[in-house]
Amino acid sequence: MRAELITIGDELLIGQVINTNQAYIAGKLTEIGIAICKMTTISDTSEAILSAFRDAWEKHDVVMVTGGLGPTHDDVTKKAVCTFFGTRLSPRAEVRANVERLLSARNAPWSDAAEEQTMFPERASPIFNRLGTAAGILVEDQARVFIAMPGVPYEMETMVSEQVVPLLSARMQGPAVRQRTLRTTGVSESVLSQDFGDIDAMLQGAKLAFLPSPTGVKLRITTEGMDSRLLDSRLNEIEGRIREKAGRFIYGIGEEELEDVVGRMLVERKLTIAVAESCTGGLIADKLTDINGSSAYFERCIVAYSNASKVTLLGVSENAINHFGAVSKEVAVAMAEGVRRIAGTSIGLSTTGIAGPSGGTAEKPIGLVWVGIADGSGSLALKFQFGHDRRRVKERAAAAGLELVRRRMLRL
Amino acid sequence: MRAELITIGDELLIGQVINTNQAYIAGKLTEIGIAICKMTTISDTSEAILSAFRDAWEKHDVVMVTGGLGPTHDDVTKKAVCTFFGTRLSPRAEVRANVERLLSARNAPWSDAAEEQTMFPERASPIFNRLGTAAGILVEDQARVFIAMPGVPYEMETMVSEQVVPLLSARMQGPAVRQRTLRTTGVSESVLSQDFGDIDAMLQGAKLAFLPSPTGVKLRITTEGMDSRLLDSRLNEIEGRIREKAGRFIYGIGEEELEDVVGRMLVERKLTIAVAESCTGGLIADKLTDINGSSAYFERCIVAYSNASKVTLLGVSENAINHFGAVSKEVAVAMAEGVRRIAGTSIGLSTTGIAGPSGGTAEKPIGLVWVGIADGSGSLALKFQFGHDRRRVKERAAAAGLELVRRRMLRL
Repeated sequence: MRAELITIGDELLIGQVINTNQAYIAGKLTEIGIAICKMTTISDTSEAILSAFRDAWEKHDVVMVTGGLGPTHDDVTKKAVCTFFGTRLSPRAEVRANVERLLSARNAPWSDAAEEQTMFPERASPIFNRLGTAAGILVEDQARVFIAMPGVPYEMETMVSEQVVPLLSARMQGPAVRQRTLRTTGVSESVLSQDFGDIDAMLQGAKLAFLPSPTGVKLRITTEGMDSRLLDSRLNEIEGRIREKAGRFIYGIGEEELEDVVGRMLVERKLTIAVAESCTGGLIADKLTDINGSSAYFERCIVAYSNASKVTLLGVSENAINHFGAVSKEVAVAMAEGVRRIAGTSIGLSTTGIAGPSGGTAEKPIGLVWVGIADGSGSLALKFQFGHDRRRVKERAAAAGLELVRRRMLRL
Repeated sequence: MRAELITIGDELLIGQVINTNQAYIAGKLTEIGIAICKMTTISDTSEAILSAFRDAWEKHDVVMVTGGLGPTHDDVTKKAVCTFFGTRLSPRAEVRANVERLLSARNAPWSDAAEEQTMFPERASPIFNRLGTAAGILVEDQARVFIAMPGVPYEMETMVSEQVVPLLSARMQGPAVRQRTLRTTGVSESVLSQDFGDIDAMLQGAKLAFLPSPTGVKLRITTEGMDSRLLDSRLNEIEGRIREKAGRFIYGIGEEELEDVVGRMLVERKLTIAVAESCTGGLIADKLTDINGSSAYFERCIVAYSNASKVTLLGVSENAINHFGAVSKEVAVAMAEGVRRIAGTSIGLSTTGIAGPSGGTAEKPIGLVWVGIADGSGSLALKFQFGHDRRRVKERAAAAGLELVRRRMLRL
């Protein structure tokens, strides 16, 4: 099944709002094997909407629309649906029941806007909106499905996952598709693909996409076939073969972030961590404390930006700073050991580097970062050379730090 | 001028990547008065690309394209441009010079991929890519402009702001549009609009949009007219009237972030700052150190997550923690005073709160945050009640902290 997704709204066309609805819907449809071939964003005028409906309905099996279903004068989608399918609005009892339920739960009075929301295209079927008063609109013929939904993200997301995905899955004929994404860091696309050797032999008909970002490469495996029960076991097999070759670089699956994984591993092992950051400026602490329950393992972080704070707060020797420089293996190790000692944690982690865009020298260029770690079995520091963009150097150094903690716990 | 924006990439159609390029480009074109009428997202196949080019070029004055300009086999946009405009690729000296400059800065060897990037459509003009090897492509006729750019966000953004916006501005006819955005924080849309009183009198024909986000409301003023020289002075007048009513809430203009403004003010006043963070977990330090040159004023940050670290690192009394609780006015003040004292800085800033999603009580609910400040003239703490989302509480608390520093410096 081939789909087009139409998102309606002037706020999208002037760049005021980032279109997250598209990615959400696309992700959900991809999971059930429906290919989105085109996404279109248009203004909330009848003319633009009808023209987009015509184009899409002619070329695709599934047309999904979001936006313009509210009760105000900007919201013209419901009327456009009537015009397009040659039908008209009339009161619909089940839609009214839902509006009444929602207003009463909010202690809100009945209004003209509420009345307007109970009107529904005669030829269409309503799609239940658990969180809002605008019903979704479903029009089907033998070959095609048309679905219009509200643009409010949480209403739309709930409607898609609870109503639309089951509805479309039931209509699916063609091959099912399953995908799995393995997340790596600290390794380049080219090294990964060298390590894999004969990729076709490894994949045996499945597809593998390399998706690089500044902090790592994601590996997306796609399997496709008529018998959906076989696909998960094929994904498992291929994941197993990828892990044989590159398992040490893989920190997570799907949406897992490195800090989620490191946090979970620390909890499982009953370990605690303290961080001493220079060039990352608090970013590692910020990431670790984004996780609910992080107070179980995150004890403290010292952002020791000045040399004086490295000496007084972390016990780094002035000698080491004078002799080796603040950006050096010796200072990185001393920072990690220092923060671990004063915080009394299982692990101490440190960063020191030159984030740029100024401050580099020939010997110590912008992007040079040392990441240090200390734990019960000793300490070490690793050297990295990142790019020139300040934020990107911080992001990459933070990922390198978290990854060092992960590998240390796994003795990789 | 009416524009269509075409974004190319399978990663968008499967929902793996949120399309932020669209909103960026739309925002920039809107600022210079070009209306985006349609946005289209398509697969990276020649067929889909050529079909989208035909549709767009027929109906719009400006066609902007991103994606598919890299050197790998997925990148088919450059060839599609040649097919569409009936031209062919040939070596282009100025494009080669840029590729050579970038590779030499990265100490990277010449490669087939680099060679491929030097090939350019004969009928087109290259658009300089300061940050990457893929040149932008410009094709013009008397009435229309076609522009293709790389899809990598930071390359594209730099190309748009430095090259494309000036190029399109120069072609603009019709009424000129000028916009200016004033950034506020710590005040709601409804309070602002109450403070403004008679908005129409204040605006005298200009438009004002309220753009709320979790950390503040942006006020976008739009003026339009045939004589572009008058527009800036009208913007100045309206900005003046807005500042009379709500000046204390306005921290910046345009793209300025709160941390940029606070950093600049600290430098101008030769002040230094140290931060003691609990619930914000390093986010304030992360923001302050995103700015080049922040080592001039940012001395250190202590992320004191545990009560023990608040006592030993910041000198908060155990009594205060036991008596008032870690999330209290007294502890916030003691943290700010403590970090200022031990760091020897002009200003100490602190946060302590309950970021959620668990850990709240009836008396101290999730989202409760105290922000403290200490400087040469004394100390104080302010109480805030933010929402329930952990990341959002952190973001709002960090903004409240930076804003407190700004107002303190201005004695607001």
